[in-house]
Amino acid sequence: MKCKKCGREAIVKLRHYNLALCREHFIEFIEGRVEKAIKKFKMFKKSDKVLVAVSGGKDSVSLWHILVKLGYEADGLFIRTGKEGLIKIAERIVEENAKILERKLIKIDATEYFEGLSTGEIAKILRRPVCSICGTVRRYLMNKVAYEEGYDVVVTGHNLSDEATVLFGNILNWQIGYISRQWPYLPKTHEKFVPKAKPLVLNYEEDIRLYARVTGIKFLDTACPFSLDATTTVYKSYLTDMEKKQPGITIRFFTGFLRNKNKTFSAEEEDLKLKECKVCRYPTTEEVCSFCRLRGKVAKVVSKT
Amino acid sequence: MKCKKCGREAIVKLRHYNLALCREHFIEFIEGRVEKAIKKFKMFKKSDKVLVAVSGGKDSVSLWHILVKLGYEADGLFIRTGKEGLIKIAERIVEENAKILERKLIKIDATEYFEGLSTGEIAKILRRPVCSICGTVRRYLMNKVAYEEGYDVVVTGHNLSDEATVLFGNILNWQIGYISRQWPYLPKTHEKFVPKAKPLVLNYEEDIRLYARVTGIKFLDTACPFSLDATTTVYKSYLTDMEKKQPGITIRFFTGFLRNKNKTFSAEEEDLKLKECKVCRYPTTEEVCSFCRLRGKVAKVVSKT
Repeated sequence: MKCKKCGREAIVKLRHYNLALCREHFIEFIEGRVEKAIKKFKMFKKSDKVLVAVSGGKDSVSLWHILVKLGYEADGLFIRTGKEGLIKIAERIVEENAKILERKLIKIDATEYFEGLSTGEIAKILRRPVCSICGTVRRYLMNKVAYEEGYDVVVTGHNLSDEATVLFGNILNWQIGYISRQWPYLPKTHEKFVPKAKPLVLNYEEDIRLYARVTGIKFLDTACPFSLDATTTVYKSYLTDMEKKQPGITIRFFTGFLRNKNKTFSAEEEDLKLKECKVCRYPTTEEVCSFCRLRGKVAKVVSKT
Repeated sequence: MKCKKCGREAIVKLRHYNLALCREHFIEFIEGRVEKAIKKFKMFKKSDKVLVAVSGGKDSVSLWHILVKLGYEADGLFIRTGKEGLIKIAERIVEENAKILERKLIKIDATEYFEGLSTGEIAKILRRPVCSICGTVRRYLMNKVAYEEGYDVVVTGHNLSDEATVLFGNILNWQIGYISRQWPYLPKTHEKFVPKAKPLVLNYEEDIRLYARVTGIKFLDTACPFSLDATTTVYKSYLTDMEKKQPGITIRFFTGFLRNKNKTFSAEEEDLKLKECKVCRYPTTEEVCSFCRLRGKVAKVVSKT
């Protein structure tokens, strides 16, 4: 199998693009698609201060490396959602990557906002899915930190497979509100809302995994222990299976969405209007934001026990 | 397990509705959902002349029985798409049902329009998927016969699982045109276009199969031999699998579509405009309709050999 670009021995055949590539051109290809996403969705410029939310997994760590390599001013943000176990290992890995990249790493402790509890413990006492708790906490804190530290944009490591999976689940359940707000770049719609971008949105998850392996990037190669029961994991497995039978279906499905969104699931102005949370003054669509409501509930349960 | 309606021993637990029913109430339930679909989508009235396209399979045969039982003036139409094999058995079964129902059965031979070739043979010589050929031929002929014989509506046995599968595939591939035209009832948009209706659209395929079994309806219990490789079969298997993990997902997905179609995939006026085929004078969106184009291609290939 020969590389389509240079004819040397290929290390991989990307079935979804019907493309065989050698190590060098595979790396170039993946990085090129990150640059393409940044440009196509007007995510940020070379002069912008970029904050990468880094969990320690292959996606966010690879993204950080790629952004720095492409010449972006990208610092890291690590959000500690627990006290022990995997989160400690993840933290060490992220620290190592910060050193290698010679970039600043901001670390914050989410448990301080919740009476010292981890997101797993919060989910347990409130009997709610961990992923929903963890998402609320992370989204809120990455915005808060980016705003307070003066970053122009927050980027996350969501890849094509993640985004296609979310879309797939939302369409199956006709979650029109969520679908209409799904986009690889969310602009500044409020003074305290820092734009959000997903530069890996054009890259398949398995390609990012291979990228991390062949470039020798250090990452935590363990799925989040809470993700196993998540509905999204089930939906992702369908897409993975379909992809095997119809290579390229994931990217066709997702780019079809991007191309047709305006005609089908366009967001209504009303949906995008943000006001300030009465408690913390950060943007929200409700009177009190979901983060502050979560804090309130946790404080109440803890005070009773 | 007790029937939810009467407390007698249930014969089935419909997981997608979380509903256990005895034989009598199961039959009532299925027939009720057919009546509901007819009313909800304003398909036809008791005074209308209804033509049921009957293939001999569980869906179309059951539908014919249910419509007659509900008091509709429903005759049958059998389209012979080949000369031998399963199609002969199917024809005999449809004839038996016509006798039992004491309703008129119209039989036509599609091969007469194609130099005596079956749809399977046409597909082979033109190197096109059989399902697409068969669909074109059947849709055209059922409309032509209904128009010529003065029927007010043509109904087909497409069930919820069929419709959800088509929608699923079209959304995965962002076939916006097809999605915007998908609806359980297609009204008269041209003088020679007879309205089309799908009264089984609210019933799961497995429920119709059980209905046919418990009522002792005679049907051909063999999947179409050409359907095995069809992409729709693959998509249906995903929905079936999802349904096992999340009972009710199919009906939620499809009724979600019905509820939200106007907001998302509304058909543009332009798409619905029909003109007359230059060859046969029946309605089409093109200059020459797909049926006449198919006839032309077949005649050309046959004349060469």
